Amino acid sequence: MVKIGVILSGCGVNDGAEIHESVITLLALDRSGAEVVCMAPDGDQMDVVDHVAGRPVNETRNILKESARIARGDIRNIADVKSTELDGVIVPGGFGAAKNLCNFATQGDGCEAHPEVARLLKEFHHEGKPIGAICIAPCILARVFGSESPSITIGTDPGTAAAMEKMGAKHVDCSVHDCVVDREKKMVTTPAYMLGQSIGQIADGIEKAVAEVVALAGG
Amino acid sequence: MVKIGVILSGCGVNDGAEIHESVITLLALDRSGAEVVCMAPDGDQMDVVDHVAGRPVNETRNILKESARIARGDIRNIADVKSTELDGVIVPGGFGAAKNLCNFATQGDGCEAHPEVARLLKEFHHEGKPIGAICIAPCILARVFGSESPSITIGTDPGTAAAMEKMGAKHVDCSVHDCVVDREKKMVTTPAYMLGQSIGQIADGIEKAVAEVVALAGG
Repeated sequence: MVKIGVILSGCGVNDGAEIHESVITLLALDRSGAEVVCMAPDGDQMDVVDHVAGRPVNETRNILKESARIARGDIRNIADVKSTELDGVIVPGGFGAAKNLCNFATQGDGCEAHPEVARLLKEFHHEGKPIGAICIAPCILARVFGSESPSITIGTDPGTAAAMEKMGAKHVDCSVHDCVVDREKKMVTTPAYMLGQSIGQIADGIEKAVAEVVALAGG
Repeated sequence: MVKIGVILSGCGVNDGAEIHESVITLLALDRSGAEVVCMAPDGDQMDVVDHVAGRPVNETRNILKESARIARGDIRNIADVKSTELDGVIVPGGFGAAKNLCNFATQGDGCEAHPEVARLLKEFHHEGKPIGAICIAPCILARVFGSESPSITIGTDPGTAAAMEKMGAKHVDCSVHDCVVDREKKMVTTPAYMLGQSIGQIADGIEKAVAEVVALAGG
């Protein structure tokens, strides 16, 4: 049985981890027989968004505590996780990936990754273990591994794709029903809601991406 | 194409709608070809729980706004929804179903249903349209329709089953992989996390329950 980490970034598309993408990832991992370890940074979210109005509100929420809602309380502080415990890792999308795991949402191709997220992803990569990233989360791979020019996708949006390339990644256009696999660098990406119009569409691509990560992890 | 309502009760197992159950319901509905309308009451949650510590905190959150995280903002106030717009309805579980859609969590078999939830469920039933309820949410069906003795399940927990029977329902033991269908009263229930040990297990039962609701709705 392979053991796969899932890095969450809060709970809700506009300020945290995209909930559909996260749950579909957890379900596909469980159905593939993988053991799952959820984790998140312990710190304040960049912002809190009212998901009815679509506007930020004057409130503070903790990334780890909000992520714990998706993980049903079974979650660890990413600072305490080492890649040696796991066989691979997946990062679901949502604005939280670009606000709380790095600051791509505000800094674009000048962004920096959260230090613990960057540290853990580098450990996995150094050990030859696969990394999956969904929706906008591939921006973190572009930032951390751009110097190695990994092939990744965020779908087809020209502006976002250009930012990925400016950070050094090679962007590959991809349908919501599919994923891009860089077999040499063991990186798997799928557009999900960067492109998807329905939960069924994004599930197609995420299920394929999860299967590729599990296979690359030896499962 | 049938149109199915999904009644959410917040966002997180301990104070709102159970996130896995809600997303698996939305995914199964989309893949069955159903159109989905998410809704929730507009009012304060009974409480807010820190999902890392598992303890209530001194904070207030709005049921509709938190539910909107699961619905990606595409949600309506349940007070504005009429059953004539829809072909059936499903209520996912989580403590929110027993704290915010009724007060079973604190009042047990002496609970009352949220007036707008009771009003809408009665409308559906009166029109012969199916109602699905997941996990602990069948307690609402026991409260609202107990006088008609519908056959429902919350899994196998004797204490909770006894409370359902005290409210007039006929409780039927059921595996997490299955669902109970009262074909005459068009009520479909599945235990999910009242019994399930993994997200894959609960998905089995929820997918069956959704298929039954869609079929009873004419889809």
